[in-house]
Amino acid sequence: MKALRVEKKRIAIRDVDKPVAGDEAVVRVLLSGICNTDLEIAKGYAGFQGTIGHEFVGVVEQSSNQSLLGKRVVGEINAGCGQCMLCREGDPRHCRERTVLGIVGRDGAHAEYVKLPSVNLIPIPDRIPDEHAVFAEPLAAACGVAERVSVAPGDRVAVIGDGKLGLLCAQALALTGAQVLSVGKHPQKQRILERRGLEVTTQKKASQWEREFDVVVEASGSPTGFDLALNLLRPRGTLVLKSTFKGTSEINAARIVVDELSIIGSRCGRFPPAIDLLRKGAVDVDSLISEEYPLASGVHAMQRAASKGVLKVLLRP
Amino acid sequence: MKALRVEKKRIAIRDVDKPVAGDEAVVRVLLSGICNTDLEIAKGYAGFQGTIGHEFVGVVEQSSNQSLLGKRVVGEINAGCGQCMLCREGDPRHCRERTVLGIVGRDGAHAEYVKLPSVNLIPIPDRIPDEHAVFAEPLAAACGVAERVSVAPGDRVAVIGDGKLGLLCAQALALTGAQVLSVGKHPQKQRILERRGLEVTTQKKASQWEREFDVVVEASGSPTGFDLALNLLRPRGTLVLKSTFKGTSEINAARIVVDELSIIGSRCGRFPPAIDLLRKGAVDVDSLISEEYPLASGVHAMQRAASKGVLKVLLRP
Repeated sequence: MKALRVEKKRIAIRDVDKPVAGDEAVVRVLLSGICNTDLEIAKGYAGFQGTIGHEFVGVVEQSSNQSLLGKRVVGEINAGCGQCMLCREGDPRHCRERTVLGIVGRDGAHAEYVKLPSVNLIPIPDRIPDEHAVFAEPLAAACGVAERVSVAPGDRVAVIGDGKLGLLCAQALALTGAQVLSVGKHPQKQRILERRGLEVTTQKKASQWEREFDVVVEASGSPTGFDLALNLLRPRGTLVLKSTFKGTSEINAARIVVDELSIIGSRCGRFPPAIDLLRKGAVDVDSLISEEYPLASGVHAMQRAASKGVLKVLLRP
Repeated sequence: MKALRVEKKRIAIRDVDKPVAGDEAVVRVLLSGICNTDLEIAKGYAGFQGTIGHEFVGVVEQSSNQSLLGKRVVGEINAGCGQCMLCREGDPRHCRERTVLGIVGRDGAHAEYVKLPSVNLIPIPDRIPDEHAVFAEPLAAACGVAERVSVAPGDRVAVIGDGKLGLLCAQALALTGAQVLSVGKHPQKQRILERRGLEVTTQKKASQWEREFDVVVEASGSPTGFDLALNLLRPRGTLVLKSTFKGTSEINAARIVVDELSIIGSRCGRFPPAIDLLRKGAVDVDSLISEEYPLASGVHAMQRAASKGVLKVLLRP
């Protein structure tokens, strides 16, 4: 089968064996989405070698769980050991022995078929089209912010970064009743949020609201975004870190201690809240789709995904 | 009256006017304690000019609150505007207009008399001697950790730094039933904790327990302490930042995001829990007193407080 692979920091479409189920499930991929993490992995992040891709929707072809066969599913990307306390409690996201789809020790979803434990697969309601279902994983990550920090109606929330993840975070947080401000660089991308009634601004203009926000989500992946985020927080406010930096930022310990700020890391979220939002059409994901390519054009698709102004690029096997 | 003052980065005992009560209270100081913050202010931290000192016990000489007159008291160091929502809710610690005793816009307690709003004064039970009561403020700061992060019996907690604040934090946290490990450099200081049944180790040896701690308190004020603290945390663990750094540390965003760590700033705590511990004799503060000097020898006392191996230095007016 065809698969988009990173090998020795080179990215290429390769012909590889179709995965063998073993005690896991095999899913025929209908559609996969390119994430910024894929772009980072192609540059060497996490030292991953193999098939990349962790956002997908597909149909179950093999599974020991008969009820899944033929079902359209999305997949939790963290595959745990199944034995540790975290896994036994049903949350493999921090299992120390975990593999992560297309990121750590497990071939990913930019392929014709993908393999995951059956327990990781979540059926998708019929009314959610493939083009929306493929957003389940990144939207779960956006919803995951609310797992890590409580956001209440009326709270002032800023989301820094108007990339794919920032746009999803801003939309998901706005549904809580919080007053969400998107801080970004691309008027075209921010228009997606304006159409949903959200306020938008630039980093430069945002700095006038120093110390006014209850929660700031950093999703720009830049040190300047991190520094701005700290400046926008009120005393005892919370910065949610969604993106790793490309550069580095020195930590201003005095500010964190004196104003008793919280900095909270957030990575993956649970899928059910995201699927619920997709089912209700509560989040605009259509506008986030920039381009779609056949899997065979995966290398070109990756280049496009890395281009300025381009949001989600989808791959169809 | 005599007062220990910082003026143009020089520290000296000066003769100044006794404070006039106005609508506040005047307290005759019985004993005051030198904090590391005093040493930092003498070096220019916070740009403060005036009488330093914020740890004290004294007797109320003037107050519009008759019930306080003649009482032995300690004092909450943050004096709020009294008008904002925080102040109206009884917590001036983050009032934006606040002054802070001997730190921001208000003369401090290394003096014969000190002035504070009556509402800031808290009577001390007779059974607590002056030499213990003077620890109410730093012990409140130590207890304040539990205001910012929940610590449960059995939790593995590391406290990095065996200075005054570190020793108080370790003792206070151990009372929660958590398994507390002190990570420090001074066997003599750590012996105070060993006598209370706490485990102690060095930074070098601590690094063997990478990713094993639920909570780490950084009270060493060093970038190496901060880096070690992050390394000791389990996924979703919490670093409590009690000390500002002397140097700087680059923030490892990937570690914070991937392991979903929390970094929580903690400054001042509420006094009642600290006074309760002092009343019960639940924390050894006697062993933390290294030396006592008359206020007139305040400059020498400051030099002593800055010396290696010296813990709390007290001043008696």
